[in-house]
Amino acid sequence: MRLHDCQMAPNPRRARIFLAEKGLDVEKVEHSILDGETNGEAYLKINPWGTVPALELDDGSLIREAPAIFRYIEASHPSPNLLGDNPREAAEIEAWERFSEIQGISAIGEYFRNQTEALTGRGLPGPSELDLIPALVERGQKRAAWFYEEVNEQLGKTEYLGSNRYSIADITAQCAIDFASAVSLGIPDHCTNVARWHKVVSARPTAAA
Amino acid sequence: MRLHDCQMAPNPRRARIFLAEKGLDVEKVEHSILDGETNGEAYLKINPWGTVPALELDDGSLIREAPAIFRYIEASHPSPNLLGDNPREAAEIEAWERFSEIQGISAIGEYFRNQTEALTGRGLPGPSELDLIPALVERGQKRAAWFYEEVNEQLGKTEYLGSNRYSIADITAQCAIDFASAVSLGIPDHCTNVARWHKVVSARPTAAA
Repeated sequence: MRLHDCQMAPNPRRARIFLAEKGLDVEKVEHSILDGETNGEAYLKINPWGTVPALELDDGSLIREAPAIFRYIEASHPSPNLLGDNPREAAEIEAWERFSEIQGISAIGEYFRNQTEALTGRGLPGPSELDLIPALVERGQKRAAWFYEEVNEQLGKTEYLGSNRYSIADITAQCAIDFASAVSLGIPDHCTNVARWHKVVSARPTAAA
Repeated sequence: MRLHDCQMAPNPRRARIFLAEKGLDVEKVEHSILDGETNGEAYLKINPWGTVPALELDDGSLIREAPAIFRYIEASHPSPNLLGDNPREAAEIEAWERFSEIQGISAIGEYFRNQTEALTGRGLPGPSELDLIPALVERGQKRAAWFYEEVNEQLGKTEYLGSNRYSIADITAQCAIDFASAVSLGIPDHCTNVARWHKVVSARPTAAA
C-alpha cells in the first residue's frame, strides 16, 4: 500500500494518524495542494477527483476519501478499534467525526482557501474551476467558532470526543484544530476543555504523523 | 425508535429510504426546515445542532447525522447489507456515498439555499446565523454539473453506483438527484447512464419513502 498525501493538509493527516495508530507504516507520495499538483494532469490520472488522501493498494486499485480508507483499514486491521465496537458507540463516534470534519476541517478550509491567492480558481478541492468567494472567509470563521463551542461543551462531559477512549472522532478534531492554529484560528482562551483534551491527544506518539 | 424528519429535504430522505430497505417502520416526527422549525427553540432542545435526520432511541438518547444512523441500523439490523460486506466493497460504497453527499446533496443544497428568501440568515443547516451568499448559487450549479458527469461515467462501468448491487451509495445519489430535479437541476440529457440507473432505483418500493 502507499498513501497519496499532502503533508500540510488536514484531510490526509487524519489518514496518516489513523494508519499510525494501527501500527501500519505505509509509503507516502507527496502531492502539493498549494502548488497545484493535486489538480495537475499527472495526479488526475491517478485520482480524477483530485483529492488527497487516496490509498493505493498493492493490486493498483485506489481507495479515495479519508472515511473510505478508515473503513477499509478498520475492517482489514481491526486492532486497535478506532470506529466503535458496538452499534451505539459507532454511531456516536461517527456523529462527532462528521461534525469535526464538516464544522471543523471544512469550515476552517473555507476560511483559509478563500483568502489564499495561490488557490485562485480552486475554491474547493477537486478539478472543477471554482472562484474564491471572499464572503466565505467570514462564514468559515463563524463556523469554526461554533465548532469550538460545541466540542468544548462535549469535552466537559466525556474524556474524549465521541467516546471515553481515543477514536477517529478525536483524530479528525485534532487535525481540524491543528490546521486552525496554523491559520490563526487557535483554541479560544475560554475553551478550557478543548485545551485539556488537546494536550492529551497531542502527547500521543502518532500526533507527529 | 422515532425519526426526526423533514419530508422535503434530501438528507432525512436518505434515512427514510435506508430504514425502509431494512424493513423498519419507524414513527416520523416532522420539523419544517423552510418554516424555521429545525432552528426553533423546541427542536434545538432535542438536537442543538439543528439538523435532521436524528433518530431517537427508545431510551430517549439521540443519534445525529444520517451516516451515524446508517452505522447504527446496519450493525443492529444487518440484513439486507447496505454498507458493504467486505473491506474493499465497503470502501468503494463509502467513497461514492460521500461523493454523492458532498458534490450531490451539499452542492445542490448550496445552489438552492442561497437563492431562497425563506432561508435568509440560514446559509447552512444548523443554529448559526449565516448570511446567504449569492455567488454560491453559481458554484452549486457548477458542482452539480460535475457530480452528474462523474456519476454518469461510473454508471457506464457498474450497474449500481458503489457496487454491483443497490447500496447506500445509490440511496444518497438518488436523494441528491430527486432533490436536484425538484429545484430545476434535473438529469442532463447526455447523462444516459444516470437516466437508466435512475429508472431502476426509482422503481424500488422504498423510493416512495
